[in-house]
Amino acid sequence: MNCVGHIHHGLWKHPRDNSVDYRKPGYWIALAQLLEKGLFDAVFLADIVGVYDVLGDGIDVTAREAVQLPVNDPAYVVPLMAQATQHLGFGVTANLTYEHPYLFARRFATLDHLSGGRVGWNIVTGYLDSAARGVGLKQQIDHDDRYDRGDDFMDAFYKLLEGGWEDDAVVNDRVRGIYADPAKIHRIRHDGPFYKVDNVYNLTEPSPQRTPVLFQAGASKRGNAFAGRHAECVFTGGQDRPALAKMVAAIRGEAVEAGRERDDVKVFSYLTVVVDSNERAARDKYDEYLAYASPEGALAHFVSGAGVDLDRFGLDEEITDEKLEALYPGRLRRVGEARGGGFAPGTTRRKLLDARRFGSQQAPIVGTPSQVADEIARIVAETDLDGFNLTRTVAPECYRDFIELVIPELQGRGLYKTAYEEGTLREKLFGAGRARLPGNHHGAQFRHGHQRSGHR
Amino acid sequence: MNCVGHIHHGLWKHPRDNSVDYRKPGYWIALAQLLEKGLFDAVFLADIVGVYDVLGDGIDVTAREAVQLPVNDPAYVVPLMAQATQHLGFGVTANLTYEHPYLFARRFATLDHLSGGRVGWNIVTGYLDSAARGVGLKQQIDHDDRYDRGDDFMDAFYKLLEGGWEDDAVVNDRVRGIYADPAKIHRIRHDGPFYKVDNVYNLTEPSPQRTPVLFQAGASKRGNAFAGRHAECVFTGGQDRPALAKMVAAIRGEAVEAGRERDDVKVFSYLTVVVDSNERAARDKYDEYLAYASPEGALAHFVSGAGVDLDRFGLDEEITDEKLEALYPGRLRRVGEARGGGFAPGTTRRKLLDARRFGSQQAPIVGTPSQVADEIARIVAETDLDGFNLTRTVAPECYRDFIELVIPELQGRGLYKTAYEEGTLREKLFGAGRARLPGNHHGAQFRHGHQRSGHR
Repeated sequence: MNCVGHIHHGLWKHPRDNSVDYRKPGYWIALAQLLEKGLFDAVFLADIVGVYDVLGDGIDVTAREAVQLPVNDPAYVVPLMAQATQHLGFGVTANLTYEHPYLFARRFATLDHLSGGRVGWNIVTGYLDSAARGVGLKQQIDHDDRYDRGDDFMDAFYKLLEGGWEDDAVVNDRVRGIYADPAKIHRIRHDGPFYKVDNVYNLTEPSPQRTPVLFQAGASKRGNAFAGRHAECVFTGGQDRPALAKMVAAIRGEAVEAGRERDDVKVFSYLTVVVDSNERAARDKYDEYLAYASPEGALAHFVSGAGVDLDRFGLDEEITDEKLEALYPGRLRRVGEARGGGFAPGTTRRKLLDARRFGSQQAPIVGTPSQVADEIARIVAETDLDGFNLTRTVAPECYRDFIELVIPELQGRGLYKTAYEEGTLREKLFGAGRARLPGNHHGAQFRHGHQRSGHR
Repeated sequence: MNCVGHIHHGLWKHPRDNSVDYRKPGYWIALAQLLEKGLFDAVFLADIVGVYDVLGDGIDVTAREAVQLPVNDPAYVVPLMAQATQHLGFGVTANLTYEHPYLFARRFATLDHLSGGRVGWNIVTGYLDSAARGVGLKQQIDHDDRYDRGDDFMDAFYKLLEGGWEDDAVVNDRVRGIYADPAKIHRIRHDGPFYKVDNVYNLTEPSPQRTPVLFQAGASKRGNAFAGRHAECVFTGGQDRPALAKMVAAIRGEAVEAGRERDDVKVFSYLTVVVDSNERAARDKYDEYLAYASPEGALAHFVSGAGVDLDRFGLDEEITDEKLEALYPGRLRRVGEARGGGFAPGTTRRKLLDARRFGSQQAPIVGTPSQVADEIARIVAETDLDGFNLTRTVAPECYRDFIELVIPELQGRGLYKTAYEEGTLREKLFGAGRARLPGNHHGAQFRHGHQRSGHR
């Protein structure tokens, strides 16, 4: 994320952490080169366009611990990282709710051109009232309505990027004086319930992938249906492995419902690792990290999604649905959405802070390379996950440790690639020849002449 | 411009022109390094978010000659060029009409951070119906209304970037655990006629310049008033030097009207140069370039702004106001705006094409380094211009020729700097210590505590 504090709040204070350098090009170039050395598929750039201003009705903790504030636009660091690497992909989070597909499509096409087909878009619809207020709305649009808008947005987006210019529209013939063949560039019309595109040409020529690789996160039923139709990669989570396994199966099921194959969707989960050559050293490192962590930062982060200021509860006062309903009439449903369920009986602010003592709710795997690899293999076996999104703890050493210690171990077990495949990000994830959306994807129907040629 | 054909249409076909490489990072990096070698203040990136689809009611000429189609987003190449240079500035065109200040402010702040304070924004409000149709409107908003929207947009933009975070809000103290001081970050409220920002925090910490250096182009009365209030740099033009001198004086006058100094606005004009070591070689080079030029491309470009399809006139048929009014009732005013006046008596399509035989209406200065320098000195003396925006003809040789041949000549006469000044783009243009908007600029009033401290 193009900011100081991302997931594990407070760790920016660690003396070896360089997150405060996020404004410098060199920070991103070095990160990209390190990850490419580790054969990472992609660097994933989260984003938020609001501020965590709910806890204590302000930003006291948020500002002090830099809880995703300040936050710069993530898309501008992609060209920097792309020019310094050859293979690394880029998953870029962007909230569609406050954008129009016409200009938004050009932005992603430009990134796909500049990166030679290595860009992905993590589709989000936002969850913060503060973001809505930024653009002058009183509060965010309702959860399911945001996804309805999203479906409409996506159709316009596909029409522009898939349907505008035929594959051979660009001729680039200096002698005949034809850069592009006007007969192969088609006007786009979209008259949806939320978005309209009135009879214009798409501004960009086809990029290597046309539509960026589509990522999505979110655990709601409506979110999973959206993912089933659109997403090629999904980030998910779960309180425990059976819950995670159920979620992976549900996402693949939604893809099949949408006429796709089960493995047309790659499912990833967040993973946090603290590794060292021996167990003692790994434990010590974790303890050292913990000393800088900010559970308060994690709470400020969490409560803003739910929209309830838990500082209005005593430290040891039970947080009940009844009390929340009294404080925030009608807000309970949203608390459930943010949390993936209400608060368990007996929940107090102290317990919530204790559960976030690493500056997030996510407990790390702490151990030797072999122990970490064992655990990763076990998670995959028990959940059918395709891969992981490694979180930032103390950077860049958390990446370097993983690359130098864990990856060789995984490679030795045949669980990790030993070289990059050629091709675009989509080809690297799904195989050679699949630079573009496959024919069974919802977006493929918007291609010019789709019915006639029946792409797969 | 992040596209193949910019001003001098058709020249992309020249065997030595590399404009078709616009999608590659290396193209931009090499360009930036070349211009920095030439001590250019800035590279100026034009943009358009519509398509020239009026001539012949389609894009036949536009697509074939790549008349600003395809066109990628210019902002993404700025980080690429910034990391490859130390001093070069970046003027980036962006149309505010289809954006919201809240997210737009973050985009420019991110660029200012990544470039170390070297970014400028060329404020445009658009002039193409096709752009409006892209976002689902039937046609563009009226000319003067666009500027009213622009004034409102700018006020919200200043509030976010100038008024959100105090200069010393960012503490970055790992030991005390304070990244930023919440007491020095202020909520932003803007309740304008067109834009609202409802009580939120600006997402970004102060960048070196906060507000990017503000550029503006346009020759209308309403446009000049807008420039007088907001612009620090203005691009202008004129049919001849007396007209240009009048325009320069009018722009400076508007700045004074707005409570600023005459030279708080730098005024630039477009300049096209074909230079070689001797006059014969320069003439030959120009003739060689001319062989590739596309007057039709220039006409397709021009008529889209006016919104009248001149292919509906015979080649030698006089284009009169009466005929235009009959074909396009009520459109004459807009033709005048696009053209800076109506068509002269006797105008025909053939004459318009002849006037554009270099692929644009702009005639180059053709000659030796000494002749070019003479002419530049004469223009400055007669018009009070501050500088020039050198147009792209056959690239990159047009820049290389200018740098290798003309700049040493100008330097020898004391008319061009021999080294960069230190500091941000604003300091390079206006002098040391002026990294931020000066206190007499309209935007400065939105700073926190402005009344009390009375900045200059």
